[in-house]
Amino acid sequence: MKYIDLRSDTVTQPTEEMRQAMARAEVGDDVYGEDPTVRRLEEKAAELFGKEAALLVPSGTMGNQLAVLAHTQRGDEVIVEAEAHVFFYEVGGLGALAGVQTRTIRGEKGVLPAARVREAIRLSDIHFPRTALICLENTHNRAGGTVMGLQEMEAIGQIGKEYQIPIHLDGARIFNAATYLGLPVKVLTKDMDSVMFCLSKGLAAPIGSMLVGSAQFIARARRLRKMLGGGMRQAGIIAAAGMVALETMVERLAEDHRRARQLAEGLAAIPGLKVDLERVQTNIVVADIMATGLSPAVFLGKLKEQGVLAAAFGGNLVRFVTHKDIDDLDIDQALMEIERICRKGR
Amino acid sequence: MKYIDLRSDTVTQPTEEMRQAMARAEVGDDVYGEDPTVRRLEEKAAELFGKEAALLVPSGTMGNQLAVLAHTQRGDEVIVEAEAHVFFYEVGGLGALAGVQTRTIRGEKGVLPAARVREAIRLSDIHFPRTALICLENTHNRAGGTVMGLQEMEAIGQIGKEYQIPIHLDGARIFNAATYLGLPVKVLTKDMDSVMFCLSKGLAAPIGSMLVGSAQFIARARRLRKMLGGGMRQAGIIAAAGMVALETMVERLAEDHRRARQLAEGLAAIPGLKVDLERVQTNIVVADIMATGLSPAVFLGKLKEQGVLAAAFGGNLVRFVTHKDIDDLDIDQALMEIERICRKGR
Amino acid sequence: MKYIDLRSDTVTQPTEEMRQAMARAEVGDDVYGEDPTVRRLEEKAAELFGKEAALLVPSGTMGNQLAVLAHTQRGDEVIVEAEAHVFFYEVGGLGALAGVQTRTIRGEKGVLPAARVREAIRLSDIHFPRTALICLENTHNRAGGTVMGLQEMEAIGQIGKEYQIPIHLDGARIFNAATYLGLPVKVLTKDMDSVMFCLSKGLAAPIGSMLVGSAQFIARARRLRKMLGGGMRQAGIIAAAGMVALETMVERLAEDHRRARQLAEGLAAIPGLKVDLERVQTNIVVADIMATGLSPAVFLGKLKEQGVLAAAFGGNLVRFVTHKDIDDLDIDQALMEIERICRKGR
Amino acid sequence: MKYIDLRSDTVTQPTEEMRQAMARAEVGDDVYGEDPTVRRLEEKAAELFGKEAALLVPSGTMGNQLAVLAHTQRGDEVIVEAEAHVFFYEVGGLGALAGVQTRTIRGEKGVLPAARVREAIRLSDIHFPRTALICLENTHNRAGGTVMGLQEMEAIGQIGKEYQIPIHLDGARIFNAATYLGLPVKVLTKDMDSVMFCLSKGLAAPIGSMLVGSAQFIARARRLRKMLGGGMRQAGIIAAAGMVALETMVERLAEDHRRARQLAEGLAAIPGLKVDLERVQTNIVVADIMATGLSPAVFLGKLKEQGVLAAAFGGNLVRFVTHKDIDDLDIDQALMEIERICRKGR
Repeated sequence: MKYIDLRSDTVTQPTEEMRQAMARAEVGDDVYGEDPTVRRLEEKAAELFGKEAALLVPSGTMGNQLAVLAHTQRGDEVIVEAEAHVFFYEVGGLGALAGVQTRTIRGEKGVLPAARVREAIRLSDIHFPRTALICLENTHNRAGGTVMGLQEMEAIGQIGKEYQIPIHLDGARIFNAATYLGLPVKVLTKDMDSVMFCLSKGLAAPIGSMLVGSAQFIARARRLRKMLGGGMRQAGIIAAAGMVALETMVERLAEDHRRARQLAEGLAAIPGLKVDLERVQTNIVVADIMATGLSPAVFLGKLKEQGVLAAAFGGNLVRFVTHKDIDDLDIDQALMEIERICRKGR
Repeated sequence: MKYIDLRSDTVTQPTEEMRQAMARAEVGDDVYGEDPTVRRLEEKAAELFGKEAALLVPSGTMGNQLAVLAHTQRGDEVIVEAEAHVFFYEVGGLGALAGVQTRTIRGEKGVLPAARVREAIRLSDIHFPRTALICLENTHNRAGGTVMGLQEMEAIGQIGKEYQIPIHLDGARIFNAATYLGLPVKVLTKDMDSVMFCLSKGLAAPIGSMLVGSAQFIARARRLRKMLGGGMRQAGIIAAAGMVALETMVERLAEDHRRARQLAEGLAAIPGLKVDLERVQTNIVVADIMATGLSPAVFLGKLKEQGVLAAAFGGNLVRFVTHKDIDDLDIDQALMEIERICRKGR
Repeated sequence: MKYIDLRSDTVTQPTEEMRQAMARAEVGDDVYGEDPTVRRLEEKAAELFGKEAALLVPSGTMGNQLAVLAHTQRGDEVIVEAEAHVFFYEVGGLGALAGVQTRTIRGEKGVLPAARVREAIRLSDIHFPRTALICLENTHNRAGGTVMGLQEMEAIGQIGKEYQIPIHLDGARIFNAATYLGLPVKVLTKDMDSVMFCLSKGLAAPIGSMLVGSAQFIARARRLRKMLGGGMRQAGIIAAAGMVALETMVERLAEDHRRARQLAEGLAAIPGLKVDLERVQTNIVVADIMATGLSPAVFLGKLKEQGVLAAAFGGNLVRFVTHKDIDDLDIDQALMEIERICRKGR
Repeated sequence: MKYIDLRSDTVTQPTEEMRQAMARAEVGDDVYGEDPTVRRLEEKAAELFGKEAALLVPSGTMGNQLAVLAHTQRGDEVIVEAEAHVFFYEVGGLGALAGVQTRTIRGEKGVLPAARVREAIRLSDIHFPRTALICLENTHNRAGGTVMGLQEMEAIGQIGKEYQIPIHLDGARIFNAATYLGLPVKVLTKDMDSVMFCLSKGLAAPIGSMLVGSAQFIARARRLRKMLGGGMRQAGIIAAAGMVALETMVERLAEDHRRARQLAEGLAAIPGLKVDLERVQTNIVVADIMATGLSPAVFLGKLKEQGVLAAAFGGNLVRFVTHKDIDDLDIDQALMEIERICRKGR
C-alpha cells in the first residue's frame, strides 16, 4: 500500500538527481579532511549563512548536541524553550553528554520572550551555575512550525552580546522560516553564533545536517564530532545529495507551505477538529482532535487504514507535515478521509 | 558589631549543649562504619522518618545530589519544581554530576500540581529520556517557606506508585513543615522514597544533613557519598551535635514561625513593602521592596549599616529568616530600622 | 598526483557496484525503523555473527561508544588494553560520554592476558568502582594488526561468564582476524556479548559500521544512538553499499594480507628499518625507522614527495596498511621509494 | 575489647586539645565566608605550602576530585600512577564526576618516571583527548608509603611547565614525606599547582582535608565544592581541630616512622612473611603472607581474635599503619601475636 505520509518531512525520498550525484560523487577520507565533495558542501553552507566555517554531521540531533558541547563546559546552564527539540526530543543528551542543566522558558508560539530570557540569566553567585548558552529553534516544531521573526531574533542576539553568552539556533527547518519571512537565511541568522540546519526534512536529502559558525567553533565541533562517532569516511556520498538539496529544493518549500495552509483550512472546517490557523505558518499543521471523541491512537489507526499517516503529538494533538512527496491530490484525499473518520466518530 | 542576622537560618550558632556533646563524643572511623555516635544518629533519623536506614552527609546539597545519583542513571529525566533548591541553588549539579535532564514545572506556592506532574511523565519513545525521579521540596524556600500539605504529598506519592517512579523530598526544612501542619515527619513523608533533612538551619547544628530511605537506597548512597568525598572519619563529632539538635531544637521551631508572622505583619504595614501574608507559613518572610524606590542592594546596604542583615532574593525581593538566634526584641528592632529606611526612601 | 596511499584502509574508495547499489537503494525513514535496505543489512549482520540483532552506525567509534554506554552506568570501570582504539583514539569519549573509568592492561601483541584481566576485576568495596565491562580489540591496530586467537578469546569469555561481566569486541577489522585464522566470524566472536565491525576499512564501503548483540542490548543501543545523533533518515543509501561490502569484499582480504607480508619482508630487508615480522599477521605493517636517522615527519615528507603515503604511529614508528586500492605494483614501487630514502638517510 | 588498630592512620582519635578547641571554636557561616576559624586555618595552610589560597574540605577524596574538576574539562585526559589513590580508591569519580579519561603509568615504588610521563602526553590530533593534568601521590599509599623525592618532583614539575600542564599532588600524607626527607612541605611541593593534604590520618584531626593552590584555582574549587556538597556551615568546629593538628601533630610523625621501621624489621624476621624493607620509609608496612599458607582473610581473622587489626591490601598482601594511637608496646605485642599465628600456619 502506498501511504500519503504526513507524519514528518523526514520521510522524503531522495530525488533522482540526488541519487545520480551520490553514484558519481568524488570522495576521499573526510576524517583526514580530504573529501572534496564534503569540502565543497561545507564551503557552500558557510557562505549561505555568512559564517566562517561549516561541518557536515549525520543528523540534526548531533549538530545540536555538538553545538552545546562546543559552547559549554560541564556544570553550565543553558536557556532553552520548554518544548524545544534539543530539550524535548533528544533523549536527554544535554544532561548525559554535555553535563549541563537546562533552564527552560515557556515561549509564545515557540518564540522565547526576550524579557524572560534576560531574567533567566544567572548572576555570579556561589550557588549558581554559569549561564553559558541560549538555544533557539526556528521554525519551532512543537509550537506547530511557527516562525521567529528577525526582530525577535535580534532581540535575543542583543542579550547575547550584552552578557557575552553565545546563541545557538536549532534551524532544522530554518529554510522554512526564511521562506515564510522572505529573507535570506544569512540575514535571518546573522546574530546567531552557531546554526544547525538539516539537509534532510524539507530539503529531501537522505542523510545529513550541517553546523555553521566561527572557524574556531567549528574546529572544536569537528573534534567533538569524532568523539560522538560522527566522523565518517567517504562522506562525499552524503554531501553530494546535500549539495543537490541546497541547489534544487529550497525554492519549492513555498509549495509545502501552501499545501499546509490548504490542509489546515480544510481540517479547521471539519467538525470535531480544532486548528490554530495563526500557527500554520510553514509546513506543519497541528490539530486538536478531542472533540471527535477519538483518542489519537484510534484516530491515527483509522486514518492509516485509509492510507493516510499522521503523527501523535502529545495530549489530544495530531501533527501533519507537508513535504516534497505530498502533492495537491494527496491533501484533498487526506482531508476527505479525515472528514469521513470524524463524521463517524466513535 | 553584633548584627541581627535574618539572612538565613543557616547562620545559627551551635548551643552550649551541642558544644559539650561534640567535645565528649565517642567516635570511630565512620568510613569503616565504626563511629558509634554516627550510628546512633542514623538509627534515630531512620526511626523518626519511618524508613529503614539513614546516612549522615556534610550538607543538604550533598544529600540531594546523592539521592538523585542513587535514584537515576545518566540520561534520565527528573521532574522538579522550577525554583526548587536542587535545581536553582545547587550549582548545576544535576547535569554535571548525575547527567540528568530536569523537567521543571512551575508550582503554586511551591506546591507541584499533581496534574502537571502527570503530564510531564515521559512515555516510552526513542526520542525521550526516561522519567526516573520526581523531586519535591517542603517547605519550599523560594516560594517563601510555604508548606506542601499531606494530601498534596499523597497525590504525588500516588503518581509515583502508579508509574513506578521514585520520589525524593528535599526536606531541608521538613520540621518546619511538620510543625506548621502539626504532623509527625514520619506521617508527612510516608509516601516519599527518600528524604533529605538538615541538622543545621533551624535545628542549629553546626554541620550536617541526613538522608533517609530504604536500606538498599542508603547502601547505594553510602557508596556514592564516598565518590563525592562526603565520607568522613571521626564524624561522630558532627553527629553528636546533630543528636542534640534532634532532641532539643525541634519543639522550638514554632517560636521561629511566630516571630516570622510577627515580622511579616510588621513589614506588610510599612509603606513601600509588599508581603504575601498567605505565604508566611513557617520561618521565612519575603518582601517586595519595589515601591520603596530602593534597589535590593541599596536597601540591604542601608539595613546593614543599622545592624540588620537580610538577603537579596532575586528581582525586587528581599528575604528574612527567623531562627534560634533571633528573639522578639530583634524582630522589633529590625522592623523599626526597616521602617525608618523605607520612610526616607531614596 | 595519484598517491600510493598506505596510511590506512579507511581511504578505500567505494566500488562501482557499491555506487550503483546506492543509486538504486530502496529507502525509508530508519528512525521509524522503516528503511528496508537497512533492515536487510542488520539482519544479515546479526546472522553472520550469530547474534540476535544488529544496528547500523555512522562509524566504528560510535559503535564502540554505544556499546560502552549500553553495557555500563556512570561511575563503572572498564577493563581495556592500554593502547586499544576505544581508549587511545576515541577522543576520551569513555570518560566524557559514559562517565566510566578505564582500567588499562598492557597486552602482549595486543592480546589481553586472561590472568591480568582476572586480577584487574574489582572486588566489592566501598572505595571501588564496579567492573562493568571488558573490551577487546581484534585485530589490534596499535599492536600492528595482530590477531587474538580463538582460545585467547574463549579464555576472556570464560572470565566474563564467571564474574557476569559483559565483553565487547572492537572488531573494526574482525574479518581480517577471521581470514588469518580461517574461522567464520560467528565462531571467533561466539563468546562476545557485543561486537562492532566496520563496513568501511578493508571492506571498502564509504560509510558505516555495525553493532551486533542481544536483542535487548541492541534496543538499548538504538535509543542511545539517537542520543549521540547517529539516527539517520534514509540510511538505506549507506546500507546498500554495506551490503555489497559484506557480499563481495570479505574474500579478498587475504590479498591484502599477502601484500602486507610482501611489504613487511621488503621493509625488513632495508637497512635502517626494523619490522617485527611476527606481528605482520594481517594488513598492517609497522616499521621502526630510528636507525635511518630520520624523524617520522621528515621520512613521511620525503615519501610523500615520491608519491607514497604512510602514517606516523608514535615514537619512531611508521605504519603502512594494505587495502583494495593497493596492488602488487604499488607495493613494489613503495618499497623502491622507501629504500631510496633510507639509503640517502639525512 | 581494645584493639591494637594498625589498619590505617585514619582511625586516630582526636586529642583532648582538639576536643577542647572544637568546643570553644569561634564559628560563622562558612558558605558566606564568615567562619573566622576556617579562615585562619585556610590562611595557615596556604602559608605552610607557599600557595596563595586554601580550602577546607570534608575529605581527601573531595580535595582530589575538586582539583581534577577545577584543572580539567570533560573529555580531557589525566596522567596518573596506575595504583594512585585518586584512580584506585575513589570509586571511579574521575570518570563519573570529571568526565575525564585516565592515562595510567606504572610507577617505580610509587614514583612516576619522568620519561614515561613525557611519552604519555598527547600530541594535538583529532583522535586524541587533551592531556590536561598530571596527578602525583606522595607518600604513595599502595606502593607502601614510599616517598617521592624533591628531584623527582622537580622533574615532573619541569615537564608540566614545558607543556603547560598543571600538576596536582595528592599529599594525603605529604607531612610523612616531608618528615622522611627533612624538608619543609613548602619546598617539597613548590612545583605543584595544587596540593591536597589531610588533617585526619597521621595528624589525627577527626575530619577534614585541605586543598591549596593559586587564588584563582581555589576560587574555582570553592564553587565546585558547593556543587559536590562540601560547603559546610559552622565548619570552624572542624577547622579548630585541624589547627591543633597542624600545630601539635606534625613533629611526632617521626615516631610513627620509627615504629613502622621496628614493626617491619620484626615482621621480616618472621618465617613466612616477606617485607620489602626498602619501601618502609614512612608509617606504612606491607607484608606478603603467601608463604604462611594462610589467606589474608584467615590471617586477619586470627589476628583480630588476638586483638590486633590490620588490612587486606590485594593479592597476598597485608598492610599495617602506625599512628598516634600506637605505642612501642603495641608494636611489640602485635609482632608477638603475628609470629604466633605464622608459626602455627594452617
